[in-house]
Amino acid sequence: MAEPIDFYFDFTSPYGYIAAHRIEDVAGRHGRAVRWHPFLVGAVFKLTGTRAAIEDPLKGGYARRDFVRSAKLAGLPFNMPSTFPFNPVAASRAFYWADAIDQEGAKRLALKIYDKVFVTDTGPVTPEAVADTAAEAGFDREACLSALGSDEIKAKLRAAGDAAVARGVFGSPFFLVDGEPFFGADRLPQVDRWLETGGW
Amino acid sequence: MAEPIDFYFDFTSPYGYIAAHRIEDVAGRHGRAVRWHPFLVGAVFKLTGTRAAIEDPLKGGYARRDFVRSAKLAGLPFNMPSTFPFNPVAASRAFYWADAIDQEGAKRLALKIYDKVFVTDTGPVTPEAVADTAAEAGFDREACLSALGSDEIKAKLRAAGDAAVARGVFGSPFFLVDGEPFFGADRLPQVDRWLETGGW
Repeated sequence: MAEPIDFYFDFTSPYGYIAAHRIEDVAGRHGRAVRWHPFLVGAVFKLTGTRAAIEDPLKGGYARRDFVRSAKLAGLPFNMPSTFPFNPVAASRAFYWADAIDQEGAKRLALKIYDKVFVTDTGPVTPEAVADTAAEAGFDREACLSALGSDEIKAKLRAAGDAAVARGVFGSPFFLVDGEPFFGADRLPQVDRWLETGGW
Repeated sequence: MAEPIDFYFDFTSPYGYIAAHRIEDVAGRHGRAVRWHPFLVGAVFKLTGTRAAIEDPLKGGYARRDFVRSAKLAGLPFNMPSTFPFNPVAASRAFYWADAIDQEGAKRLALKIYDKVFVTDTGPVTPEAVADTAAEAGFDREACLSALGSDEIKAKLRAAGDAAVARGVFGSPFFLVDGEPFFGADRLPQVDRWLETGGW
């Protein structure tokens, strides 16, 4: 079987939210699995001297319009969170904790987190709120809560970020398909075409 | 009749090349005309502290792959120019000179310039080469050549750049549809949807 697609995303990324709801369908049409890798895009931006579009005085207003339009075009609900950006560390750590137990469950957890952030504006930022969300996704709340502060999980998230940078990931969402890099939810049609034609 | 769509582009922009070949079809499906506005995106980048993706050490390699893939997905040939970026001033001035004579002819000229840049790698950079291309598009070669150095045409291009910035244009290609801003050739599906639904 062909290698899984690697999907890199940050929980504060509106386009990551869109991609998370679409990538499994795109990959599945071509018999591919997907490995999900949340990471802290803010740390990458620091390394690269980039800033998020929404924090750019010139592009911030545009970005807010584009989030809404991009979600609508993808057929997804979208509401700008009242607190934005927010700290995605607890959510990201929870993912890696859950992923070691149940990979499909961790994806369900990631989607629940994204929906709380970008649909219902109940984004789980604190460890307690993240642990509640893990419980809703079928995981053990207390085990999650204690894992969020563990050195092992902290190290896992750091390592995931380092690995992403080492593979050339510079934004969210980002896909690696047999080594070919694709940046942005708007590149999913290219991913689809690439998978269909085996490169071009 | 509804207002024309404003289409802003830079002749060094690969995504501008893609958009130039697509925007009239998208607009035409909805009974809209298009006003074309070449401008110097480099001047805008200086104002905004942005740099072209291809000049970014981290993203340059990615951008080159994305140009090719984006053109293929749009069904267009694409070859990276051997000299890139190049000075788009003469081409941009020629457009405004031609536009005052024949708007549809000026669009043909713009497409010829883009095809020479991004298909046959014979990009017309010098005033002489630009005037040759204007002649191929049905304009008077000598009149074009002498206009390229005129104060009137220089002022027109500067004014076009100032007007673009004043309307919030920050990159190429950029579309304004009834005041709604769209940035990127990859936003043409959104432009299409916007025109179909009258906003959403």
